[in-house]
This record gives sequence, C-alpha cells and structure tokens, in this order.
Amino acid sequence: IFAASSAFGQQDPLPSWNDGAAKQAIEGFVEKVTEEEGPDYVAPDNRIAVFDNDGTLWVEHPAYTQLVFAIDRVKALAPEHPEWKDKQPFKAVLEGDMKTLAASGQKGIAELVMATHAGMTPAEFETIVEDWLAEAKHPRFKKPYTELAYQPMLELLSYLRDNGFKTFIVSGGGIEFMRPWTDRVYGIPPDQVVGSSIKTEFQDKDGDPELMRMPAMNFIDDGPGKPVGINQHIGQRPIAAFGNSDGDLQMLEWTTAGDGPRFGMIVHHTDAKREYAYDRDTKFGRLDKALDMAPEEGWTVVDMKNDWKQIFPPEPAP
Amino acid sequence: IFAASSAFGQQDPLPSWNDGAAKQAIEGFVEKVTEEEGPDYVAPDNRIAVFDNDGTLWVEHPAYTQLVFAIDRVKALAPEHPEWKDKQPFKAVLEGDMKTLAASGQKGIAELVMATHAGMTPAEFETIVEDWLAEAKHPRFKKPYTELAYQPMLELLSYLRDNGFKTFIVSGGGIEFMRPWTDRVYGIPPDQVVGSSIKTEFQDKDGDPELMRMPAMNFIDDGPGKPVGINQHIGQRPIAAFGNSDGDLQMLEWTTAGDGPRFGMIVHHTDAKREYAYDRDTKFGRLDKALDMAPEEGWTVVDMKNDWKQIFPPEPAP
Ligand SMILES: [Ca+2]
Ligand SMILES: [Ca+2]
Repeated sequence: IFAASSAFGQQDPLPSWNDGAAKQAIEGFVEKVTEEEGPDYVAPDNRIAVFDNDGTLWVEHPAYTQLVFAIDRVKALAPEHPEWKDKQPFKAVLEGDMKTLAASGQKGIAELVMATHAGMTPAEFETIVEDWLAEAKHPRFKKPYTELAYQPMLELLSYLRDNGFKTFIVSGGGIEFMRPWTDRVYGIPPDQVVGSSIKTEFQDKDGDPELMRMPAMNFIDDGPGKPVGINQHIGQRPIAAFGNSDGDLQMLEWTTAGDGPRFGMIVHHTDAKREYAYDRDTKFGRLDKALDMAPEEGWTVVDMKNDWKQIFPPEPAP
Repeated sequence: IFAASSAFGQQDPLPSWNDGAAKQAIEGFVEKVTEEEGPDYVAPDNRIAVFDNDGTLWVEHPAYTQLVFAIDRVKALAPEHPEWKDKQPFKAVLEGDMKTLAASGQKGIAELVMATHAGMTPAEFETIVEDWLAEAKHPRFKKPYTELAYQPMLELLSYLRDNGFKTFIVSGGGIEFMRPWTDRVYGIPPDQVVGSSIKTEFQDKDGDPELMRMPAMNFIDDGPGKPVGINQHIGQRPIAAFGNSDGDLQMLEWTTAGDGPRFGMIVHHTDAKREYAYDRDTKFGRLDKALDMAPEEGWTVVDMKNDWKQIFPPEPAP
C-alpha cells in the first residue's frame, strides 16, 4: 500500500503541460491553498474555480460552436420560414454570406439564437443539441466538437477537483447549449454550469406542466455579466478564474481582487500550427485589454505553443 | 468491522419520524431508486431533490423570518430615513401597525426588502444577516431562528445525501438571505440554494471591482417561478420535491410529472401545541389548492403532529 500511494503521489497530474512558468504557477497555487498548516490555506468549501468555455476549454475558431449550431438550425428550419429568404440576418445565413452575418454583430447573432433556440421545452432543446453534436464535425479538424476540448485543461480540471476544488463553467455561451454534454466532456454537472440564457416560462396546458423556452433574452453572462452570474449561481467569490478573452476581464478582476490567495489565468492562442493564433484582432475571442493588464494583475498567461505538449486528447485506440 | 457496518446498516436514519405512511413512503422511494438491479433505479447524477425553506425546513410563523429581519432593518435604518415616518409601508413598520403592513401585501414587503437589502455588496449584506441571526430570537420559542429547523427534515436531508442525492433549497425567500447559513444548518452549500433575488451590478470604481446590490427585483422564485428557478440553476428536473404551501404547487407538479419514479411531499402544519397549526387561512404559508390536489397527484402529506416524534433539534448538552 505504501509503495502504491507513493507512486501515485509522484505521478504528474498535468502530463500535457511543459515544465515552465505556467505549470509552476498552477502547482504552486494548489500546493499553498491545500497546505493545512500553511499561511495561505483555504478550506475546501471555499476552493471555487471558474472556467470560461469557448477558447478556454474547447476550440472557438473559426467560429463559436454555438453560432455554427444556430446557422445549421436556421438552414434546417428554413422550409418552415419562407420569410427568412428576405430578412436579415437569416438571408445572410441562407446565402452563406458570412460577411453580412458578421456585420450584424451581437444583435444579429442574438436574433438567430432567439429564432432557433426557443419555442420548445428544455428537454426538447437538449435533444436537438445532442443530435447536432453527434453529427457535426469541426471544418478543420474533422472531429466532433466535443472531442476538441483541450487536453491540458481537462487535466487541470481533474487536478483541481482532486485537490478539493469545485469546478464551474462561467461562459458567455448558452447555458442549455452546454449542459447536455459538460458532465461527459469536462466532469462538470449541469448545476455547475453558468451561462447566458433566454427566458423560460412555466406553462400548464392540458394539465401537463412544462417549461417553455421563450424568444427573449434573460441574461448575458459575458464581460461584467460574469461576476453577476457567478454571484447569482455560485454565491461565493471564486479563488481561481480561467479565461481567454476580454469577455473574462471582469471575472478575472473580481476573482483576483478578493482577500487571500487568488489565481487568474489567461489561455493565449499562439499556436497556428496545432490550433489557432489570435488575440487582439479576431471576431471570436478577442484578447486585448486583459492581455495588457495581465502582468500588473499577476495573471498567468498560458502560451499554448510553448506551454502545452499536446492540444487535444489522444485518439482512442482503434 | 463487520459488526460495525452491520450495526450501521440497521440504524434508523429517520429516528424523529414515527412509523407511518409518510416515513414508509420516503423509505420506499429511496430504496427503489437506489436498488441497482431494480426497475426504478435512478443513477446518482439524476438524484436531485429540492426543498422549499420557510415552513418546510424551518419555522415561518408568526411571520417569515426574512420579514422580521426586514422590519428590524427598517427600524435600525430609520434615523437615516426621516421620510419613512410619513411613507407606507415604512410608517406601519415604525408604528408597529402590522395590520396596515399586512394590507400592503407582496408589494409592500418588496418595498421593505428593496429599501433594506440593497445599496451594499453581497459580502456586506452577508455580514448584516449573520449579525442579525446571531442576536435575533423567535418570539415564542426564544431561540435563534437557525435553531428552529425541523429535526425530522434535517434527518431527511442527511438520509437523502447518504443515498447519493444532491439536495437543493428552492425558496421564495431571498437567495442571499439564506446562503450565509444554509451550509451550517442544513449541510447545503451556497451554490445549491435557489431563491428570489434583487438585481446585482458589477461596478469598478477606483479600480476596486465590486458587486453592488440594487433596489430592483431580479427574480421571484415562488409559484410558477420555482420550476423556472430550478431549470435555471440546477438544469435538471428533480425526482423529489418537498414543500408546504401553494407556493410549491408548480414545483411539485413539474417534479412529479416527469418520467420514472417521482416523489412529492407536503409538510402540513397540524401541531399547534409543539409548533403551529395552519393551512387554508393564513398569511404565511397558505396551503389550499396543493392540499386538495395531493391525493390524486400521489403526493405524501406529512401530518406534523402524528408523523414527527419531535419538531426541533435536541438542546445541546449544557
Ligand atoms: Ca472565451
Ligand atoms: Ca414554504
């Protein structure tokens, strides 16, 4: 028994991370908050870690997965909506005119989401999401999106949980777009997922009580919305936050401004060869102000190209 | 070791419950959903149980605890608000005119909450709640409110958790009024508390990122709001719901209308001697329609007087 636990203790919990400043910062933080006699000890109840999703836990280029989903849904539903042929941003989607779609901005994307994500129960929407994920493939990597989570981040999630952390997703993406698969892919159950949402209404038609998804925004869990979403869902200020864009800025600020030991990390996409390289000039996952602030705020910046031995999980044995 | 675990296995997990239909229904449900080879087996991930708070887990008479808190806060803050002397419902509170206060209804209570629960950070509000709970005593039982949780329900929470359930509070009360103490009293951590809320705003004054509680309602987690709140926070339909009033009706309906084994329970306050007796005719915790529906819906009604051996936890040894 001694030999076994000793061997276990020496196993590297982050094998896909190169030895370097980022890995050392993570391990140093976890060691100090878990050292019971140390000055920086944090009780397990307060070991709350929050993770952005798109670009932090899985691929977000060439476009957010949920946007690709919404576009596919517009195409699938188009026969029932002849009016979409002449109405933006639907027209742009149906004509494959990504430039016009992009120009429609957040408002345009919200219209697509509203039109395609509402008018059904949460259970029905879950089935649509699951069916789509089972078929859809990433255009470059030719794999299901759920196989394009970052292996080093999966190891990090497990490492934190093994050290008594409770891990949450806090994403600008739709809460019910993520919940069907986050447990399977990340080990994060539905109630530990925070995200943007449309309104949901209780209806009791014909004595059959149901929830109905409505075409109206309820909450935008992005930017200054992230600390609000965290407070609403988790009810505690986290001690560690992980993001990749300016949409995570306020979450990083609020998390790391708390008393006691704090950890902030930014995943910087620097690897065009194995994944993508982007920061200040991109429509999806723009990282500008947060990158500038990182040094003075003490946030660890992960350089994907140099810090990660591999990007994606290994292929399952054939 | 064998003797110890055998004895443990035979220990009654619900010692404060009299043997009777309610206790048998609870135990029967838990046994069938945890029997791995049985037809009603439910995987641990789906063992979600939701509990109303006021009148289900702790005392709500002669008035909701949070209303007593709001009244005490109005009195404490009155010197800073001379205008309250002439403004309802504050005037009624300051003059001890409970009839006028009651007549102001939900709207009046919401005004008290807004005026006394906003204009501070969540952490500051938590301190105010903790300080108040440490001092306040129930007018009849002369004990802190947090000692007036129902012992049989505390046993039920533990029993469910010991059987792989995840337990949540889903209350019409304020989410941040409950979170400071639910872990200590019920073993339910802050992120497993769902409740009503006022709006919270992210502010970054002087480079000090903070959340600020605003005097505006965000969400009413009562009646048809309860299934909506459950869906938003938990993201799964529970398999068991526990309530005590018509405010729990839609939660009970939605929970028990799902497929597979389901459990709904209503705590009926029938014990004027040891606690209170009320149902159809009360301002706090009105139970009317849900009581009528219980038989046909198959909901278990707990008769506090006959089903519970004791109401409150035993006094700690002196
Ligand atoms: Ca992101
Ligand atoms: Ca109640």
